[in-house]
Amino acid sequence: MRTSFLSNDTICAIATAPGMGAIAVVRMSGPQSHEILCKLFFQHGKPFPKEKIQGYRTFFGHLVIPSEGSPETLDEVLVTFFTAPHSFTGEDAVEISVHGSVYVQQRLLELLIEAGARMAMPGEFTRRAFVNRKFDLAQAEAVADIIASQNEAAHRVAMNQLKGGFSKQLQVLRSQLLEITSLIELELDFSEEDVEFADRSQLKQLLDETQHHIQELTASFRLGNAIKNGIPVAIVGETNTGKSTLLNTMLGEDRAIVSDIAGTTRDTIEEVMNLDGTLFRFIDTAGIRDTEETIEKIGIERTFRKINEADIVLGLLDATKSPNAIEKAAQYILEHINPEQQHLILLLNKSDLCRPTLDLGVQAPHVYLQTLSAKTGEGLGQLKETLAKIQQGMNLSHDAVLVTNVRHFEALKHAYDSLETVRKGLEEGLPTDLVAQDLREALYHLGTITGEITTDEVLGSIFSRFCIGK
Amino acid sequence: MRTSFLSNDTICAIATAPGMGAIAVVRMSGPQSHEILCKLFFQHGKPFPKEKIQGYRTFFGHLVIPSEGSPETLDEVLVTFFTAPHSFTGEDAVEISVHGSVYVQQRLLELLIEAGARMAMPGEFTRRAFVNRKFDLAQAEAVADIIASQNEAAHRVAMNQLKGGFSKQLQVLRSQLLEITSLIELELDFSEEDVEFADRSQLKQLLDETQHHIQELTASFRLGNAIKNGIPVAIVGETNTGKSTLLNTMLGEDRAIVSDIAGTTRDTIEEVMNLDGTLFRFIDTAGIRDTEETIEKIGIERTFRKINEADIVLGLLDATKSPNAIEKAAQYILEHINPEQQHLILLLNKSDLCRPTLDLGVQAPHVYLQTLSAKTGEGLGQLKETLAKIQQGMNLSHDAVLVTNVRHFEALKHAYDSLETVRKGLEEGLPTDLVAQDLREALYHLGTITGEITTDEVLGSIFSRFCIGK
Repeated sequence: MRTSFLSNDTICAIATAPGMGAIAVVRMSGPQSHEILCKLFFQHGKPFPKEKIQGYRTFFGHLVIPSEGSPETLDEVLVTFFTAPHSFTGEDAVEISVHGSVYVQQRLLELLIEAGARMAMPGEFTRRAFVNRKFDLAQAEAVADIIASQNEAAHRVAMNQLKGGFSKQLQVLRSQLLEITSLIELELDFSEEDVEFADRSQLKQLLDETQHHIQELTASFRLGNAIKNGIPVAIVGETNTGKSTLLNTMLGEDRAIVSDIAGTTRDTIEEVMNLDGTLFRFIDTAGIRDTEETIEKIGIERTFRKINEADIVLGLLDATKSPNAIEKAAQYILEHINPEQQHLILLLNKSDLCRPTLDLGVQAPHVYLQTLSAKTGEGLGQLKETLAKIQQGMNLSHDAVLVTNVRHFEALKHAYDSLETVRKGLEEGLPTDLVAQDLREALYHLGTITGEITTDEVLGSIFSRFCIGK
Repeated sequence: MRTSFLSNDTICAIATAPGMGAIAVVRMSGPQSHEILCKLFFQHGKPFPKEKIQGYRTFFGHLVIPSEGSPETLDEVLVTFFTAPHSFTGEDAVEISVHGSVYVQQRLLELLIEAGARMAMPGEFTRRAFVNRKFDLAQAEAVADIIASQNEAAHRVAMNQLKGGFSKQLQVLRSQLLEITSLIELELDFSEEDVEFADRSQLKQLLDETQHHIQELTASFRLGNAIKNGIPVAIVGETNTGKSTLLNTMLGEDRAIVSDIAGTTRDTIEEVMNLDGTLFRFIDTAGIRDTEETIEKIGIERTFRKINEADIVLGLLDATKSPNAIEKAAQYILEHINPEQQHLILLLNKSDLCRPTLDLGVQAPHVYLQTLSAKTGEGLGQLKETLAKIQQGMNLSHDAVLVTNVRHFEALKHAYDSLETVRKGLEEGLPTDLVAQDLREALYHLGTITGEITTDEVLGSIFSRFCIGK
């Protein structure tokens, strides 16, 4: 399927971060890239001879603006050549290192385009690398993750994926599935004779192992996603307990609108914060209370969903309320979390107004209680310490293969479901050809992850999320 | 003098623009740069062998984090080696091209520093290039100008300076001065015999030529500075004529504080605007009026100085005033400009409030008159057209050598003054050794431009204005 995307043209883009720097690098890739460059790259006042081109060689010279008379120099440049297939894209390619003024970068792109190249689409360099089998789709996606990674854990997971750690796991799964298929198709060949050739117990054991393997991978998504996008922390509580104020104080800016009118925060607001190198994704939620207003009801439903997705729940309690009301509110939050998987930090907020001494009678390993003033920031240090402690327990830095991509997660779930149908089919004695069909479906879903099976549409949606120049 | 700055250590810095990009380039230069890199750069799981290093060659491999066990990969990288003296700095050097995540860039710097490099100071790469005689000081300064240039004209002037256009002019001046010196010192050798060997008329002619040459260069500073920093446009007028409002409308943002209290703008505010690729530097000034307030008096004096420096003066007149008052105000502005060198655009402002039909009786080639509403933006198009027309007449894009740097401008002026003293000394029959002293002074000032004569202090102040990584 990869050959459906043919590249006869030559693309160019600025590869370095936008703006002014000491230097900037412009990339060009495609069959005409060497020819286009030789029109513009001069050494000792003469066009660079194509015969001198060698891969992985760098040359110093002048990038010129073509003209009738003697060409004007745009910049002194370093040019590095790559020859197909030994380049990032697998095509002939060139990297031009120029002085990093915005003017020079833009002018150089114009000159390359006038000479026959065209502007690259976002992710087009990586897409060409995928098409030319430099790596599979999961590895291509890892390239985008590496560029976006903001801390060590996220970077390590992405590097592992780029190096093919995840792809290898998928290959193991694939060969397991192929083994199952071959056992079943053996039966299929002799189905008219009504013989069960395949050892059914062996088949079931293989199925068990494969499903277990997929389950391990999908289970790692919770952690993988936390590493890549931040550990999800839901901020919940009744209206007016100070949820938005807490978010603002944590982030040090006015991100959420804070007002005294009950039910201000109808939409969930997410903010990512870097605490000592670990990302936390804070999710502000609508206040939980009985309401008849439709829009707010939707918000409250969403709050419960967000609580489910979070690894950590910050439960805000209003210290100015009666002890009875506070205990009731705390119990309400406790009922809505999963103490096996989730950590709960109960925060007795508004300590600047009132200092209750409360024993909520809550004694659980994953439940913490402290006072706080979201307004003055008192108690914030303790909260951050607790978050850091929970994070350490999550062991974000191990080297296991983690699923970090929603697309992969969903493909794995589909593969699991197909195998579940296979299992049922076998148990219920379904005709072997129908079972084989479900097996092929499981293989299909795995294939979409690495890009063995894909469509232009899927590719387009994946690569359009890349930055230009990659 | 260049050798006073020894570099025994190895420096590193991010060379590309800050932030996230597809790739980023980290530079390292100094005697240990190859050795340091070989500790961290692996191919096929093994450290890169030093014997394989060749200048202008690029290698693909892994940048690793050293550890007791098997080293972890930080990133897949491209490394380009440069060997002394064939590098930008003239030292052994390395450029490492990594995935452009902020994390990878920072971590790589940390690893290089742990391995023995140190963070480069701003401009330190270029300073080393200067010390190693890759180019002179004027060319080194051109590197910073190229990076900062925002349009074609500024870029072209800086490129011309980098290529040595200006330095060549200085060499011509220098050889003229040396010729004068040799003529005079010939006299000096025989001074006891009271003989005038040198042909005084030849000497004077040479002096004339040299001074004329210097004058041409200093005269080009007005244009060179306009190209580099923007054409200076002073906005002047009585208080409350809408000067700050005009600036804000032109820039589309609230840069200057606008109020109704007369005399709000006490400090001059400068803003650079890019009109069709040409930079204009707008200078908002204090209102001109009789005042007893000391602070405001200072502001008004500054206004007159700014008017002198400007190539274009925007004179604001209040259309709601009496015709008599408007004419008086216009005359006042006209008296303060130099119609030979400056363009004046008289703007009858507040056309939204009042539409006077005025003939100010002003008829001069460099004086324009139009109505305007700084508040609504009416008439702004016409104003921009006039600015563009004036700019075209200034011929910013010719290829002559232009002085763009204040430091160079001042050194040239000092050299001119020294020659003036030489001329007077010759006319007044001063002893030849005193005249020779003034000549050496002129040579000294020229030498400071290219860096033949310099001090660590001067170098420090020049290069500290560069960005890090250059």
